[in-house]
Amino acid sequence: MLIVQKFGGSSVANAERVRHVAGIIADTYAEGHDVVVVLSAQGDTTDELIEKAKEINPKPSKREMDVLLSTGEQQSVALMSMALEAIGLPVVSLTGWQIGMETNATYGAARIIRVSTERLRRELDKRRIVIVAGFQGVDRNEDITTLGRGGSDTTAVAIAAVLHADKCQIYTDVEGVYTADPRKVPNARKLDEITYDEMLELASLGAQVLMNRSVELAKRYGVVIEVLSSYVRKSGTKVKEVAKKMEEMKISGIAKDNDVARLVVVGVPDEPGMAFRVFNAMARAKINVDIILQSYGKAGTNDISFTVPITDAEAAAAALNDIQEAIGFDHVNVDTNVCKVSIVGAGMMSASGIAALMFEALYDAKINIQMISTSEIKVSVLIDKAYADQAVQAIHNRFFG
Amino acid sequence: MLIVQKFGGSSVANAERVRHVAGIIADTYAEGHDVVVVLSAQGDTTDELIEKAKEINPKPSKREMDVLLSTGEQQSVALMSMALEAIGLPVVSLTGWQIGMETNATYGAARIIRVSTERLRRELDKRRIVIVAGFQGVDRNEDITTLGRGGSDTTAVAIAAVLHADKCQIYTDVEGVYTADPRKVPNARKLDEITYDEMLELASLGAQVLMNRSVELAKRYGVVIEVLSSYVRKSGTKVKEVAKKMEEMKISGIAKDNDVARLVVVGVPDEPGMAFRVFNAMARAKINVDIILQSYGKAGTNDISFTVPITDAEAAAAALNDIQEAIGFDHVNVDTNVCKVSIVGAGMMSASGIAALMFEALYDAKINIQMISTSEIKVSVLIDKAYADQAVQAIHNRFFG
Repeated sequence: MLIVQKFGGSSVANAERVRHVAGIIADTYAEGHDVVVVLSAQGDTTDELIEKAKEINPKPSKREMDVLLSTGEQQSVALMSMALEAIGLPVVSLTGWQIGMETNATYGAARIIRVSTERLRRELDKRRIVIVAGFQGVDRNEDITTLGRGGSDTTAVAIAAVLHADKCQIYTDVEGVYTADPRKVPNARKLDEITYDEMLELASLGAQVLMNRSVELAKRYGVVIEVLSSYVRKSGTKVKEVAKKMEEMKISGIAKDNDVARLVVVGVPDEPGMAFRVFNAMARAKINVDIILQSYGKAGTNDISFTVPITDAEAAAAALNDIQEAIGFDHVNVDTNVCKVSIVGAGMMSASGIAALMFEALYDAKINIQMISTSEIKVSVLIDKAYADQAVQAIHNRFFG
Repeated sequence: MLIVQKFGGSSVANAERVRHVAGIIADTYAEGHDVVVVLSAQGDTTDELIEKAKEINPKPSKREMDVLLSTGEQQSVALMSMALEAIGLPVVSLTGWQIGMETNATYGAARIIRVSTERLRRELDKRRIVIVAGFQGVDRNEDITTLGRGGSDTTAVAIAAVLHADKCQIYTDVEGVYTADPRKVPNARKLDEITYDEMLELASLGAQVLMNRSVELAKRYGVVIEVLSSYVRKSGTKVKEVAKKMEEMKISGIAKDNDVARLVVVGVPDEPGMAFRVFNAMARAKINVDIILQSYGKAGTNDISFTVPITDAEAAAAALNDIQEAIGFDHVNVDTNVCKVSIVGAGMMSASGIAALMFEALYDAKINIQMISTSEIKVSVLIDKAYADQAVQAIHNRFFG
């Protein structure tokens, strides 16, 4: 089998962790597999480099930032190769440009255009373990680029795709994907399998196991990802197109997102085109709007409520105030004291009463629902931030308890 | 003019120094010149990386060591570019592989095969300051190599050669090349010019301003090097084929080398082939022999004395003991308490009495000479290490006092 394994920054943070991970890689190789390993920068290296840069230039160019940051992964792959050499294994480290990881020229957030298989195949044919620097590539001009957040996951999936790898294992500090955050919900269960779409919803809802981008890439090329722990040796969660569900499971997971704000545009005249003008203002300010609710306000007016990422709340309010006179609404309320709690499950809509079960759980827990949003595979509610954990626990108990 | 400037590790050790050096570069650019800058890794970066590697593998492969160490220079060039961006200058950083610095595959001590001018010219044509990572290259297989000690000087000279640069400035923490070590000899004078050959002798004699390798390369391609300080802005010392001498100067400089040991093979039978056998043993052990003296010992025997680098003293003694029976000498004495003091000057042999002046200076200072060696452009003497500084001062006073 050809197996791609990715290890994050905390997995290679110091000599001890490097040696530990080398043990995992060595065991995989000893089973007779071809192994390609993708690594992130060690622990805090990236933050330290950013710090150094800011000391010299508070606004460095993204090109030079990429030249600087890409050294972190290069150090990781050299050190891991040394650890494998120390136990007598054939190994070679390769950077982004050495494996022909070609990207566009969007420094700091480059998109992969293609990955050459030539060098990778040549090294695998020599029965070498190949250690690849994640997160980095080169553009057509041979300039160094980085892929942005979660870039190493994306590197691993892209390599698994072009090499038609049999497995793509993403090692993290959790044992897999859970029905809810196990630190908050003690009886949360690890899922054996989950679909790409469910994983995408869970990731966007704040369950930060895999970055969406790598899941999207995996979905497009049919790469089965396994999320598992680098600390304990047991199988994790497979992310794939169709997931087997445990019999009784109606949903795959529950997630909460604290980083939302609710805006209420109060006293919007009850005339056509008002909603268009509000959300057009948001679009022009490049602000993503999530849940939307329109309700009757005082006589002849409506209230338009919607949620935005908490970091965009101020900009959204400012954009609205700019059009206050033109629209003629009364005022804008901004509430950052809210939380979005969601249940996710493929084919949820085909099973009746899933949403009702969620609402009932919240009602029993005496938690007020401020807004509701639904999609094919999820139901989200907006509640008071103070009740977030309690809400997740209550819903979890109802579905998995 | 096209000017190549090289700055060492201490010149870019921290944000303050980086900004200071950026000022030197900016001034050169502001004068209308094309500027290529070659940098070493920041301060202790290389040592820290070696430390990290050793923690994981006490004997890492040289290939992976080069992958690791080359990140140091890459960080330097990114940070320096950011510093120049901060003052609004057009700049681009380039790594060894990006400038097409092709070397052989001798990791850790690679030799330059060729340097492509294409990328460098393209960036210079855009009126950009080009910041190049020194010390590193790639072999034909696209694997990362490093050039070994003094590698960044060599990078700078190689780039100056292929670009036919008008100047190649090597910035250091001294103001140039002196007639003697200015920390030891207060009245040491800075030389305006010195020949390649004199510089090579001085370097090999322990005046560590420039590594021999970069001087050899400069001599081969006729690159005029200027050694100058990154701390004070004044002209330094030019290293070139023919150097103008100050009228009264008979020699260019005085150097001492503490890292030598003297071996005496006592009681060698007075038969043909004995010297050959002794020095053949040294050659097989790959030990460089410097000054050689053969003198009469006890009846019918000779004593053969010679010097070797102090680090090879033990190995040399062991190699001699291996052939003791075959040769039939009495025993070997090893003396590490010696020092080599040398005067260097092109055309020294054409001026009579130079060596005599040196010996007289030592005689007046009551310093005993153990061995003497001369070449076209230098005279070396071996003396007791305790008198090293005193000897340099006495000779300096005689020639420059």
